[in-house]
Amino acid sequence: MLFASDNWSGASPRVLSALATAAAAGGPAYGADAWTKKVEGRLAEIFEHEVTVLPVGSGTAANTLALSAFARPGGIVFAHAQAHIATDEAGATEFATGCKIEPVRASQGKLLPGALAEAIAAHGGGVHHGQPVALSLVQLTELGAAYQPAEIAALTALARRYGMGVHMDGARFANAVAATGASPADLTWRAGVDILALGGTKNGCVAAEAIVVFGGGVGRDLAFSRQRIGHGFSKAWFIAAQLDAYLADGHWLELARTANARAADLARAIEASPQARLAFRPDGNEVFAILEAGADRRLRDAGAVYYAWSAAGLPMESTPGAGEVLVRLVTSWQTTAAEVAAFALRLSG
Amino acid sequence: MLFASDNWSGASPRVLSALATAAAAGGPAYGADAWTKKVEGRLAEIFEHEVTVLPVGSGTAANTLALSAFARPGGIVFAHAQAHIATDEAGATEFATGCKIEPVRASQGKLLPGALAEAIAAHGGGVHHGQPVALSLVQLTELGAAYQPAEIAALTALARRYGMGVHMDGARFANAVAATGASPADLTWRAGVDILALGGTKNGCVAAEAIVVFGGGVGRDLAFSRQRIGHGFSKAWFIAAQLDAYLADGHWLELARTANARAADLARAIEASPQARLAFRPDGNEVFAILEAGADRRLRDAGAVYYAWSAAGLPMESTPGAGEVLVRLVTSWQTTAAEVAAFALRLSG
Amino acid sequence: MLFASDNWSGASPRVLSALATAAAAGGPAYGADAWTKKVEGRLAEIFEHEVTVLPVGSGTAANTLALSAFARPGGIVFAHAQAHIATDEAGATEFATGCKIEPVRASQGKLLPGALAEAIAAHGGGVHHGQPVALSLVQLTELGAAYQPAEIAALTALARRYGMGVHMDGARFANAVAATGASPADLTWRAGVDILALGGTKNGCVAAEAIVVFGGGVGRDLAFSRQRIGHGFSKAWFIAAQLDAYLADGHWLELARTANARAADLARAIEASPQARLAFRPDGNEVFAILEAGADRRLRDAGAVYYAWSAAGLPMESTPGAGEVLVRLVTSWQTTAAEVAAFALRLSG
Amino acid sequence: MLFASDNWSGASPRVLSALATAAAAGGPAYGADAWTKKVEGRLAEIFEHEVTVLPVGSGTAANTLALSAFARPGGIVFAHAQAHIATDEAGATEFATGCKIEPVRASQGKLLPGALAEAIAAHGGGVHHGQPVALSLVQLTELGAAYQPAEIAALTALARRYGMGVHMDGARFANAVAATGASPADLTWRAGVDILALGGTKNGCVAAEAIVVFGGGVGRDLAFSRQRIGHGFSKAWFIAAQLDAYLADGHWLELARTANARAADLARAIEASPQARLAFRPDGNEVFAILEAGADRRLRDAGAVYYAWSAAGLPMESTPGAGEVLVRLVTSWQTTAAEVAAFALRLSG
Repeated sequence: MLFASDNWSGASPRVLSALATAAAAGGPAYGADAWTKKVEGRLAEIFEHEVTVLPVGSGTAANTLALSAFARPGGIVFAHAQAHIATDEAGATEFATGCKIEPVRASQGKLLPGALAEAIAAHGGGVHHGQPVALSLVQLTELGAAYQPAEIAALTALARRYGMGVHMDGARFANAVAATGASPADLTWRAGVDILALGGTKNGCVAAEAIVVFGGGVGRDLAFSRQRIGHGFSKAWFIAAQLDAYLADGHWLELARTANARAADLARAIEASPQARLAFRPDGNEVFAILEAGADRRLRDAGAVYYAWSAAGLPMESTPGAGEVLVRLVTSWQTTAAEVAAFALRLSG
Repeated sequence: MLFASDNWSGASPRVLSALATAAAAGGPAYGADAWTKKVEGRLAEIFEHEVTVLPVGSGTAANTLALSAFARPGGIVFAHAQAHIATDEAGATEFATGCKIEPVRASQGKLLPGALAEAIAAHGGGVHHGQPVALSLVQLTELGAAYQPAEIAALTALARRYGMGVHMDGARFANAVAATGASPADLTWRAGVDILALGGTKNGCVAAEAIVVFGGGVGRDLAFSRQRIGHGFSKAWFIAAQLDAYLADGHWLELARTANARAADLARAIEASPQARLAFRPDGNEVFAILEAGADRRLRDAGAVYYAWSAAGLPMESTPGAGEVLVRLVTSWQTTAAEVAAFALRLSG
Repeated sequence: MLFASDNWSGASPRVLSALATAAAAGGPAYGADAWTKKVEGRLAEIFEHEVTVLPVGSGTAANTLALSAFARPGGIVFAHAQAHIATDEAGATEFATGCKIEPVRASQGKLLPGALAEAIAAHGGGVHHGQPVALSLVQLTELGAAYQPAEIAALTALARRYGMGVHMDGARFANAVAATGASPADLTWRAGVDILALGGTKNGCVAAEAIVVFGGGVGRDLAFSRQRIGHGFSKAWFIAAQLDAYLADGHWLELARTANARAADLARAIEASPQARLAFRPDGNEVFAILEAGADRRLRDAGAVYYAWSAAGLPMESTPGAGEVLVRLVTSWQTTAAEVAAFALRLSG
Repeated sequence: MLFASDNWSGASPRVLSALATAAAAGGPAYGADAWTKKVEGRLAEIFEHEVTVLPVGSGTAANTLALSAFARPGGIVFAHAQAHIATDEAGATEFATGCKIEPVRASQGKLLPGALAEAIAAHGGGVHHGQPVALSLVQLTELGAAYQPAEIAALTALARRYGMGVHMDGARFANAVAATGASPADLTWRAGVDILALGGTKNGCVAAEAIVVFGGGVGRDLAFSRQRIGHGFSKAWFIAAQLDAYLADGHWLELARTANARAADLARAIEASPQARLAFRPDGNEVFAILEAGADRRLRDAGAVYYAWSAAGLPMESTPGAGEVLVRLVTSWQTTAAEVAAFALRLSG
């Protein structure tokens, strides 16, 4: 009953096997290897577009580098208040880009176009305020929702109007593709996304993320930016080999579908319980639930692992009442039906 | 005949096996795992000292973070002109710490105490110049020499006198321990080193370095600095598991001894050849040789891989003449006696 | 009827005369002049405390440097959402310190201790969030209120408990001293303030601010930080001479008292008008008023200059209704009774 | 006998009068004043080119901002080892741009095209080294020479070939114009300079420098960069008024001609003395001389003020022998013939 985070999961056997093969062999350093080249080819095919790809070792690295491509003096990045870049990266964006992150109101983590327009208007008033430089979206959102292509396009159109770049934090992009059924292309460049931080780590890799740049120009500078934060690894094939196996034959989507299915099972169990309810309807592999204190205690006593979540800024119906607690339950490709069943059993008392 | 760099090598079977075991299992994220704890214990024992350990994924990350612990406004870091931090990290130190790197004259990469004293005197003259904050040593040096404990102590004493911190870039620290026979403690804190960037990647790991802090205080801030350059990996056990196997039962020194022995064989072959000579006597696993152009061509035609090296700043006897070329040959734990023999054969024509 | 900002004002004759005298003479560069020494003496006397003083040319420089003294990796600075550092300095704090500014709820710009406690609690949760490093107060607040010593002490006690430094943006500190009648010492170090950015520019100087450090240690580093943003002026006496005349014989408070008195007159005129009301009761030289659209138009047609102000986050009673507008009116030492009378006349229709 | 630096000088009466007039009046803040507009017009005329002008308060600010316009990740700036940006700005360039400064060999401070070509070649080798982004020239050089237009063009052509921007530190640009007789246009944009930091402070202003941008694009971002280092002054007219008077009617060149003439007198006195010789033939207002120890002592005893200078890197003939000292003597618009005569008298014993 490990629902703390999908980053507690192990590596999928196919990914692990590719990593082990590459690691035993070694090869030319700093990305001059065959794996790195193959990954770029795979991503071009998957996204139906020419891409520049920079493999890195963590989501924080991927996000901060992607945003650095849009950074300008006095830059303002618009994002959700609970976005990973705003709350979980120890100020990486401020440190590496000098930019400031401005929160935008949202529904289940999806930014509201009206709120984005307001926020831009409030922060584009001249040299004192700084200048809007980037819109940063999270797919799946921090609250478990999947953006639809049209929702993305509505937001990026606003960004475009103000000359801003668009970054997508795709730590759970695979889960969003699996959830929406939309194509990777429709969820990114066709909807106006300039750079995607494509996650692998949470979904079957050990440590593997890819910065995917649609449209040229920024690639060369990103290589320098990557080098100076130490993500231009000498044995770069250790990431590329993971990504190669991860992306081959739709393995990444298969893993995400499993995780999503387990989350759906979990959601059903919660809905069926008189001592629990959903805070949000989950689209992917994150379930936000409101538990009665007794149920929460019972589950934890039985060894279930998950985090309590802050309800700050959430609507009434997603906020716990007295004697209740808001929790986040995350499934992964490794979550078993048995784990979910055990959870459901304990939940029902 | 791969002598390009030890970072072309694969992972040692013991390291790889530990990595695979950890990767299959997964576990608590962000360093709250059992491997990370074990590594700290091992390093305390190896260095005979309490240590704070921060595993990271690359040498550039380890170096820049270690130096950030000493950074102050207008800071000046003294180092060898060819130090990795000066020439191979795309300005990571300048970017992350705002400090400037000031070159110090050296002999086979070992800084000369007199030259260090001069450099400090020339750059400590007040608010315009900036303030000396750190001394950065490389062990093995960029030119293949191993510092003896007394040589380190002579330099760190100068640093101490000016209130500077001391960083050691130990990308090839294992090779230096193997070469000198001195204890890890004698080569670091007992000789005045404050923070060691201990390398694993070049010597049998896939991507694993450890920032080893002797003496307290800076540990807490380093964790934040690490997080914001994306080296606070969620699946931190993927590095810790490598380091654990690397450090267990003296495996790291065993690997280094092999690499050093192969380099010694290589050096002998070069000395024996009428068409080649040593630019420096190698202490560890890096051999700098001056080859006649014909020998160089012959070796490359036969598939030998190695880099030509700049002779800028080197003494007369280490500088190639007309029709000669200076090259660097690096061995690793994976280099075989057969490879060296093949090289020797081609060299002799 | 210039009420746009006190930074539209000219220099007071005494300040201007001192500046001219110094400027004609010249003298030793970079602060080795007699004026700079005198200013430090004056401030020690005024604040009844040993101080380190760094004159700079602008409030943005003073604030960013003061905060840099507290900066640590992943640092979080707590401040009012409309604080100058948050909205008017083009991201200077993020750029120069890498820290992030976290907004705290307030009443008329005075931070609420309960809200500060909550904000710290929400942002001190470990390496992902970052670490609280500084509390930044504005005196007068952005909304025209003056903190009383006890109010400051209640906030700084919280900061102290979490090991944070305390910065006070005193762009209108003179107005606050004049408004509260409290001593400079009671409003700063006795109430727990570590560094004050003492304003001169808005209150009779041309370009002169002083970073006043209570308690040692940080002074030396600040000199380097100042140098590298170009506020270590060669002809440093041009600032010191202004400050010297500004601080002599209570001139600074005399100027502030005039500005405050004019604001009080203005407030009375607004209260007396049926077409206007005060959004807040002004303590110093900033008046926030809600005008009927007709009155606003009449005033502007007559040449009155002032800014409309955002009501975002303000309480109901300070928020304009339909057909109303919130405006800020700032008086200065140069504002005349005649200007206020003319304003009152137009306001009454 | 004040020859320490031209930044010890006072303000010229015309500049001071303009400053006083502006300071008494006040006016719209942040550059929306009439003076700022006038300065842009004057500079367009003087440089025979459309220009974007950003007045700032110090040379360090002007240089670091100008270079920030060219900054890219891993950026390398090529400059003289004794350039102000390399030795006198407390690491402002490294701090604000993250770039590293690479020294280039020179003759009397003028970079040698061959040496520049070598330096670029040595530092353009890929992602590890970083990327060449800017060439920074100093006019007058740190050693008192004036570049001729053709000399500038030869260097900027190299910069252009590698896609680098060109910055000129013109702290003593007026002296160079006066020395060469070349037009401001010929010495800048016609010779390939992109951004000039035009000095006023050393030549009759109190604190006034102008960033002069030839060719568009970078202007808007510079305004943000300037704001966040606190050089977007609220009372921006205090700089603009100085520059306006400084540039009117050729006053700036008149001042520079006086300073240069005094330096020429000084040089003649040195050449005439058996106890002194010129280290370099001066072009402008900086005289580098080698004095016998006795003469040096006699002059200092008589109250002469000047700095000893480092001979590091200088050619044989400019290096002091035993019992000699290298000194720098700087004249300004305020230096009198009597001061020079007194110096000559003491020098002759």
